[in-house]
Amino acid sequence: MVIELMKSHASVRNYKEKQLTREEVEELIGAAQYAATSHFVQAYSVVWVTDPEKRRKLGELSKNPKQMEGAGAVFLMCADYNRLKHAVEMQGESIVYDQAENLLVAVTDVGLLAQNLALAAESKGYGICYIGGVRNNMEAISELVGLPEGVFPVYGLTVGVPNESNGVKPRLPVEAILHENDYDEKKYETILPEYDKNIQEYYGSRGSNQKTASWSQQMANFLNKPHRPDIKEVLAKKGYSFK
Amino acid sequence: MVIELMKSHASVRNYKEKQLTREEVEELIGAAQYAATSHFVQAYSVVWVTDPEKRRKLGELSKNPKQMEGAGAVFLMCADYNRLKHAVEMQGESIVYDQAENLLVAVTDVGLLAQNLALAAESKGYGICYIGGVRNNMEAISELVGLPEGVFPVYGLTVGVPNESNGVKPRLPVEAILHENDYDEKKYETILPEYDKNIQEYYGSRGSNQKTASWSQQMANFLNKPHRPDIKEVLAKKGYSFK
Repeated sequence: MVIELMKSHASVRNYKEKQLTREEVEELIGAAQYAATSHFVQAYSVVWVTDPEKRRKLGELSKNPKQMEGAGAVFLMCADYNRLKHAVEMQGESIVYDQAENLLVAVTDVGLLAQNLALAAESKGYGICYIGGVRNNMEAISELVGLPEGVFPVYGLTVGVPNESNGVKPRLPVEAILHENDYDEKKYETILPEYDKNIQEYYGSRGSNQKTASWSQQMANFLNKPHRPDIKEVLAKKGYSFK
Repeated sequence: MVIELMKSHASVRNYKEKQLTREEVEELIGAAQYAATSHFVQAYSVVWVTDPEKRRKLGELSKNPKQMEGAGAVFLMCADYNRLKHAVEMQGESIVYDQAENLLVAVTDVGLLAQNLALAAESKGYGICYIGGVRNNMEAISELVGLPEGVFPVYGLTVGVPNESNGVKPRLPVEAILHENDYDEKKYETILPEYDKNIQEYYGSRGSNQKTASWSQQMANFLNKPHRPDIKEVLAKKGYSFK
């Protein structure tokens, strides 16, 4: 049942008007929190953006206006060492979180929480979409919702009753992901061209949003240049100086 | 059902001997891959360590010998831009992944995959445990399983039939995690001392592995110093120079 639910996932970007209630939101987050967390640090916070004007601005800043305004709930999924700073200072100590390790921990903690939250919502019939676009303007978004030192939005998550949904996109075959005992990069020579064909067939067959580029063409067009070069500096201002 | 499954999560560190079959492993990973992935990059790989000598060494290097040797399956959950490098070069382009953005993307992609994998396994009655300890020796572990440029282990994941299990630890209350429209750090003044009491009661009541420290005491003892200061350098050698 859980496995079937996972395999039916497709991002939903177009929602019906129904807004999630506070009770629903608390149920979803209360379940998501039971994901594992490194050394029990729980280094995350969720900002639920309900104010219409803030949602409008957030949509602009993350370059997802239609989705941010139309969703049943909009969450900013945040890495958070601020709460830990309070806890550590309560004990008369000073916190250290400027290491690469701390960034890996916080981003991982947020990821496990977010995927539980997404799946919990999907198990209730909602659709979801992660919004990496919040990283286009992390600093302005931080100001918009008052994120203090130690807190930054890793991505947004929209949730709502699906109005329309894309098909489920074929993933890389398991053999591309799974390596036994030794990492084998030679196999990509044969696997990737086959996957390219499958993806092109899929894109050609779907009714809307047809694309003609293969997976490797999409990746080449996207990854041949740097993206969001300001992030290092924004993170450093938040205390994640990556030492 | 999914929400109840999430809320029953507790790390399992002691497993019965039964090993997962290849069919089971492929089913779990094949489901986990349907998690969302940033721009469809699928920037992850899983190394399944089955060789007894490699498992022994991995246990030593990650400071989890008993668990790594005793589990029903041992996975290294890896960030991976190596496969993408192959895809991009197939198209005659050069890949750029040395930005902070790329590290956030890869660690997030691994997190969503890993939490789906963990939950898929738990839905089949297995127990799981994340092993952050692999970051104690990322370079030696990379050599052990031949991880090339672009690939590093973010954490391990053990899976198996539970032999014994701790109780489910009480998380921070939802109100500590959830902020509406504006991040509110003032509330921690009252929430954290209450949570400290709850955690101490929980630790006092459980049968084994009793602890007396409150949550904020544990955090203070743990976070008053830097951890794993070599990680930045290891990541840079892998191509993640965090520009």
